[in-house]
Amino acid sequence: MKTVEMAHGSGGQAMQQLIGQLFMSAFDNPWLAEQEDQARIALSSLTAQGDRLAFSTDSYVIDPLFFPGGDIGKLAVCGTANDVAVSGAIPRFLSCGFILEEGLPMETLTAVVHSMAQTARDAGIAIVTGDTKVVQRGAADKLFINTAGMGAIPTDIRWGAQQLAVGDVLIVSGSLGCHGATILNLREGLGLDGELQSDCAVLTPLIQTLRNCPGVKAMRDATRGGVNAVAHEFAAASGCGIELVESQLPVKPAVRGLCELLGLDPLNFANEGKLLIGVERAHAEAVLEKLRAHPLGQNAAIIGEMVERKGVRLTGLYGIKRTLDLPHSEPLPRIC
Amino acid sequence: MKTVEMAHGSGGQAMQQLIGQLFMSAFDNPWLAEQEDQARIALSSLTAQGDRLAFSTDSYVIDPLFFPGGDIGKLAVCGTANDVAVSGAIPRFLSCGFILEEGLPMETLTAVVHSMAQTARDAGIAIVTGDTKVVQRGAADKLFINTAGMGAIPTDIRWGAQQLAVGDVLIVSGSLGCHGATILNLREGLGLDGELQSDCAVLTPLIQTLRNCPGVKAMRDATRGGVNAVAHEFAAASGCGIELVESQLPVKPAVRGLCELLGLDPLNFANEGKLLIGVERAHAEAVLEKLRAHPLGQNAAIIGEMVERKGVRLTGLYGIKRTLDLPHSEPLPRIC
Repeated sequence: MKTVEMAHGSGGQAMQQLIGQLFMSAFDNPWLAEQEDQARIALSSLTAQGDRLAFSTDSYVIDPLFFPGGDIGKLAVCGTANDVAVSGAIPRFLSCGFILEEGLPMETLTAVVHSMAQTARDAGIAIVTGDTKVVQRGAADKLFINTAGMGAIPTDIRWGAQQLAVGDVLIVSGSLGCHGATILNLREGLGLDGELQSDCAVLTPLIQTLRNCPGVKAMRDATRGGVNAVAHEFAAASGCGIELVESQLPVKPAVRGLCELLGLDPLNFANEGKLLIGVERAHAEAVLEKLRAHPLGQNAAIIGEMVERKGVRLTGLYGIKRTLDLPHSEPLPRIC
Repeated sequence: MKTVEMAHGSGGQAMQQLIGQLFMSAFDNPWLAEQEDQARIALSSLTAQGDRLAFSTDSYVIDPLFFPGGDIGKLAVCGTANDVAVSGAIPRFLSCGFILEEGLPMETLTAVVHSMAQTARDAGIAIVTGDTKVVQRGAADKLFINTAGMGAIPTDIRWGAQQLAVGDVLIVSGSLGCHGATILNLREGLGLDGELQSDCAVLTPLIQTLRNCPGVKAMRDATRGGVNAVAHEFAAASGCGIELVESQLPVKPAVRGLCELLGLDPLNFANEGKLLIGVERAHAEAVLEKLRAHPLGQNAAIIGEMVERKGVRLTGLYGIKRTLDLPHSEPLPRIC
């Protein structure tokens, strides 16, 4: 079978074959091998790691499916793993739901599934339960993936945006906007190929270096909506304002060039491997050092602070502060 | 805003408004209210109920979105809840991912969300984490939903299809094919409106009546692919054969009529509120009695048994046995 057919989404033989020949062998693990309607996970394996379960989901509809630095499969593992990991949890288990368009080349599906499997394996994550639906040609665009993920939050980690207070410092774990700029360049044919690459990565190892680090109060990964969206979330949850400093934002030259070309702000660009971290000022340098010691955090930087005056503001290169509104919408759709 | 726009799927203000005004208020619960990137669930609330976590996912792409007896929102709660519940677990938490087509009437989305919320509330399930994506007009057909669900499996329940053995009896919890026949009638305009209704229901209460019932060995809900698909799964997992008896299959007159009209078999039709249960012969009558005492199991019936000879067979009305193959595909796509 060279393409996905409607039969691959029915309860019949074709679906059984697809599950058996592709999913079961690529995602191979003891939970999946039981072939029940649900994965059955020993709760003791979770309680051994923490006292709360972190549970999160995302659907992935990115266009194009493959891009420098990743593909929709890698993204579907990284994105959900990171949403779990920023709680302090170690993501362990993922579910996976495919919605496939009739006629999708089987080669495309196979490449995406193997990419998911590889990314999950590298991160110590098991894809333990799943589902496949097929819709007619034109009823979906190629391939959508949903993943839901979970892991236990260690008892000693109590991060949360509500704890942020005036004087706390904001640290970003690396340069901004690489994922968004890469997709924008591909879609708009801007000709910056070769200079741009998505930062798509599972951040658990970086986050876990901060596990015993005093002063860490809150952490989110800055995906859709960029650092600006997370800053607004931090501000809303804490009741404080936020001031960021433009000169301190780590932005790669290719991303900066693309932003200047189009009049866009890298603060609004999606990332798929970057954290915004709120830290007590006294511990900020120590946190920065830990981040920079890790390959995923080399370009970490202090970019702002929590202030009394509400709202999110950016101090520009000439020292003038301007309000950063949350845009009505993003620069481009289907970024993740 | 009268329709869903691309901005509702971006990380900006429009998405925040949709989340705040629709999802947060409809699904309202303490986990969701924290507005973190992940729900944080006390593991003690799960370990108090069992020793294993049941975890399952399904995407829902049913066409049409609304049908007699339910809608895609109700289905998205029932379907995943049932996949968790057939392990013996009590489904407690759901994630929810929406993929919306630009231009979808906001009224449609609102009706679906409220239906999900009502179904979940009635079943004691909290929708604790979610995601919304919007794709351009024509890149998806109206509205897709993914849910992933979980609950703890009580320590004393050890159901599994591998335990089935020769001589065990197969019980179905009610009449067959109502969901599939309802959708087929709607889509093909067969004019049986008023007589057909989907059996879409959360089966936890029915399943829990069997919790302390000796002899229950395995249980699945017979959705896509119908009872036939589950029979094949039971046969494969146990290494036994299965023989079903046509005269004992509970099928409502309208469903039977539609099947005869089209030359289809109700055993292949999707259900959304029916169980196939494997039970030790000595306990079969007691299990049947318990099922029939519950409104969701009134039409329960013994329909067959596990036998030595491999394969799945049906003894017809004149006593002749024929092999029931697993069809290559289902009678109709996008049934769930």
